[in-house]
Amino acid sequence: MEFSSKLLQDAVNEMSQLPGIGKRTALRLVLHLLRQPKEQTDYLSKALSNMRKGIKFCKSCHNISDVDVCEICSNKLRNDKLICVVEDIRDVMAIESTGTFRGLYHVLGGKISPMDGVGPQDLHIDSLVEKVKDGNIQELIFALSSTMEGDTTNFYIYRQIQDFNIKTSTISRGISVGDELEYADEVTLGRSIINRIPFEASLKS
Amino acid sequence: MEFSSKLLQDAVNEMSQLPGIGKRTALRLVLHLLRQPKEQTDYLSKALSNMRKGIKFCKSCHNISDVDVCEICSNKLRNDKLICVVEDIRDVMAIESTGTFRGLYHVLGGKISPMDGVGPQDLHIDSLVEKVKDGNIQELIFALSSTMEGDTTNFYIYRQIQDFNIKTSTISRGISVGDELEYADEVTLGRSIINRIPFEASLKS
Repeated sequence: MEFSSKLLQDAVNEMSQLPGIGKRTALRLVLHLLRQPKEQTDYLSKALSNMRKGIKFCKSCHNISDVDVCEICSNKLRNDKLICVVEDIRDVMAIESTGTFRGLYHVLGGKISPMDGVGPQDLHIDSLVEKVKDGNIQELIFALSSTMEGDTTNFYIYRQIQDFNIKTSTISRGISVGDELEYADEVTLGRSIINRIPFEASLKS
Repeated sequence: MEFSSKLLQDAVNEMSQLPGIGKRTALRLVLHLLRQPKEQTDYLSKALSNMRKGIKFCKSCHNISDVDVCEICSNKLRNDKLICVVEDIRDVMAIESTGTFRGLYHVLGGKISPMDGVGPQDLHIDSLVEKVKDGNIQELIFALSSTMEGDTTNFYIYRQIQDFNIKTSTISRGISVGDELEYADEVTLGRSIINRIPFEASLKS
């Protein structure tokens, strides 16, 4: 792509560094900003740089937070003996929006993925193991995505904490509520039969 | 969506103002920036605000340009008697990349679209009519997209300049090179038959 302006070219190049945004999309977005009032671009660029400079992470659960200890961790009404292990803030937001979990979270910041050069030392695993060692925790719930990397990460953490006397569990996999059986993939359907639950228990949830 | 951080929320909100970017995509993009070095966000936010502040438009053709008169308009080797009327810079880039046009452009900055509140006074139509009045131009090529708005804009401009003795033309519509006839839409195929060209002429292009 040849640009008639260096300023335009720089903006498009930087924009197209974002995942899933190619040069054409970047140009469309940048031209949109040009048609809008100058303030919109100011707000966007300031919001991005303020965020990148000022963002903090909760000292306890490593979730994104504006204060040292996030609202969830500092909420006395939540059960601090129950920890849900998740990959990133999006998972926290997703689980929070269900309203079914009243424990705390531990945000790993990713999954072990040798292909992407992410090892255990790049994730917040040590601080999780420390928490378990401290002896206050009763149960860890693994809520990582059900992929090779997710399973590897689960298993790595499990090995580190198996000698401590705590319960571990993983979120259930199965057919989505409202889905037709005939359209489900075989692996999920197979697992949902192996991991069947007592009918009486299903009535409660 | 409930965010655990105001800074994150602001960044996501501003990002999701861009066309085609919803809150979820905005969050994905912003989290990507958080995982990258701080500099990337700096470059992006500076490139955007520099572009918005510093961008200029060519005084002659209204294309985006870093100088008063753009490279195309100031190129003595180009035919300044032939003007191609386009909607925006993307069309200029697309036509330039074909390498088949050696005239100049006139960028309208949009199309007449009452539905979007865009009238003739919002576009660079007056300066085009002035150029025609000055008498230096031999031919105007209308290269707007073939929609109701494009056709309206073409016709509006045509009405303004029809009394001056210049040639007007419009880019040809037809089946794309390499396309199968059976998959073409009826309107395009119909037009391509009505606007057929002498076989000898087709051998030259």
